[in-house]
Amino acid sequence: MRLGPERVAVTISGRDKGRLTEQDVMVVDLQGQAVDSNARPSAETLLHTQLYARFPEVGAVLHTHSKNQTVASRLYAGAGAIRLEGYELLKAFPGNETHETAVELPVFANSQDMPALCREIDAWFESGRTMHGYLIDGHGIYTWGRDMPATRRHLEAFEFLLACELDLRRLRS
Amino acid sequence: MRLGPERVAVTISGRDKGRLTEQDVMVVDLQGQAVDSNARPSAETLLHTQLYARFPEVGAVLHTHSKNQTVASRLYAGAGAIRLEGYELLKAFPGNETHETAVELPVFANSQDMPALCREIDAWFESGRTMHGYLIDGHGIYTWGRDMPATRRHLEAFEFLLACELDLRRLRS
Amino acid sequence: MRLGPERVAVTISGRDKGRLTEQDVMVVDLQGQAVDSNARPSAETLLHTQLYARFPEVGAVLHTHSKNQTVASRLYAGAGAIRLEGYELLKAFPGNETHETAVELPVFANSQDMPALCREIDAWFESGRTMHGYLIDGHGIYTWGRDMPATRRHLEAFEFLLACELDLRRLRS
Amino acid sequence: MRLGPERVAVTISGRDKGRLTEQDVMVVDLQGQAVDSNARPSAETLLHTQLYARFPEVGAVLHTHSKNQTVASRLYAGAGAIRLEGYELLKAFPGNETHETAVELPVFANSQDMPALCREIDAWFESGRTMHGYLIDGHGIYTWGRDMPATRRHLEAFEFLLACELDLRRLRS
Repeated sequence: MRLGPERVAVTISGRDKGRLTEQDVMVVDLQGQAVDSNARPSAETLLHTQLYARFPEVGAVLHTHSKNQTVASRLYAGAGAIRLEGYELLKAFPGNETHETAVELPVFANSQDMPALCREIDAWFESGRTMHGYLIDGHGIYTWGRDMPATRRHLEAFEFLLACELDLRRLRS
Repeated sequence: MRLGPERVAVTISGRDKGRLTEQDVMVVDLQGQAVDSNARPSAETLLHTQLYARFPEVGAVLHTHSKNQTVASRLYAGAGAIRLEGYELLKAFPGNETHETAVELPVFANSQDMPALCREIDAWFESGRTMHGYLIDGHGIYTWGRDMPATRRHLEAFEFLLACELDLRRLRS
Repeated sequence: MRLGPERVAVTISGRDKGRLTEQDVMVVDLQGQAVDSNARPSAETLLHTQLYARFPEVGAVLHTHSKNQTVASRLYAGAGAIRLEGYELLKAFPGNETHETAVELPVFANSQDMPALCREIDAWFESGRTMHGYLIDGHGIYTWGRDMPATRRHLEAFEFLLACELDLRRLRS
Repeated sequence: MRLGPERVAVTISGRDKGRLTEQDVMVVDLQGQAVDSNARPSAETLLHTQLYARFPEVGAVLHTHSKNQTVASRLYAGAGAIRLEGYELLKAFPGNETHETAVELPVFANSQDMPALCREIDAWFESGRTMHGYLIDGHGIYTWGRDMPATRRHLEAFEFLLACELDLRRLRS
């Protein structure tokens, strides 16, 4: 969650995400460096700060790994993106006034090289395409918004839409 | 929920449906116009008031968007309706004394033009066919009943029957 | 649940099974006739009393309609029975000391004629085959045991085994 | 759970695993013999003590039977093992620093002859292959770790990975 123009709260590396307390959270700057702390931030901190640095209006970033996110990322990694269309719930994303639209959810390869992964994500933004989130193959989703409630809404929408999309694929096969 | 012959309680537009309190509810007349309130009713209010106006015995209308409802609406939009038969639970709907019956659940296209959508729904009623609910493609279900417990029972029955119908389709493919 | 050699507690007809209290339960004899009560017992009471009358050691009978039970009953109604084998959990049923056994779960047609349905069930018992429960097509399961904990265990075992069997069918298709 | 170099706490035979209290637990030695107790340990105690005896660093062993574990064991019993690769979550197992690895989960036949089953499991270890858990066909999973939190993490990881693997198989068929 963003705390200020150059300050972000992230999770300390290795903490049990199911039992987080205030003691498991630390502050970093937009380069992902610890501020007033000796703790080590989570390995994927750069993926978070990349979004806060690029979009001053972003107030929160969430990263989760549900079964649907993981399975969808594996299935669509070859295609490079999942196209979501025809759902009323696409209105949950900013800029979508009607459901007669499509949202593209890219799938990036799961690299341990964070700067290389950041460059791939940057290239997507630079190409002029919009995205409200992305998957990492075999890993999970990242999504963001102006504040925590908006970001949770985007996460919930992606989870629901991926569940529908996978189920339609099972049923149409 | 109906409050009287010409008065209905509906949700105010844009409120988080997972956290509704009394402050998120307003009163409208059977044309969907606000009564004693400056709040804006939900965009789909006309779909609710259409049912209260046509059927004086309807005391409650529910609209939800579960995964099964959304997936079924996408799968059967082309056919225009889902035919449910052979289930004991069909007795949950009024007028069904035995399970040796069938219930048709129509799927209407998802239009942003509410009056046009209302006319399509009216046409179904005018054709003399009964329905206890309908789906809107990519969106969700509407169902109704004489009071809230009956309407919840119809909703629960449709949700269960759609889950069974989709699973049978997966298993028979 | 059995209360004595000739007395059984059953649910009063039409009560909401999700909100049962003591006031929703009545006593019947082994012919399904109300004892000291003007209430009407559930339409399926004869299916319960048939089991208490035939097997003096039966202390409880449970009837439920889950999605897996309903879907399995529809899928296997043509075959007349589901054969469950190769599962450790088959040991949950009395008389099964090892998992190297099979349990047959018959599926009977869903008849509104309770005496006729009882005769079909009797015919299965008379044929010398054992069963620990049965399905009714499109409707649900009946299972029984020496007391309520044993009967709940049988119900839980059938629910789990049907879930596995359906999933294996989805995966092997 | 290990209590000391030669002492292990296991469940008493036949207790309801959903309602365990301290009174349902007993102490055995590394040969599975009761220590200071007349209670009979669970039939599968040898599978637990085999792991504590072979690996002094193992502090806990867990055995569960979920639907996914049971279904996966049935599906992969013929192949003898499930190969899990391409998942970020493989890092949950010790020695896996990256997700660019594979974990093999063997499936052993469900034998009532515990010493024979132990020899099969020993043969796998003797062959020099690593494993972090194994399935028994039609039955469930065993997994272990240095303490209870690590063992729960391994169990949760296997459960999640099996769910993904089965779902990918459904979707790719």
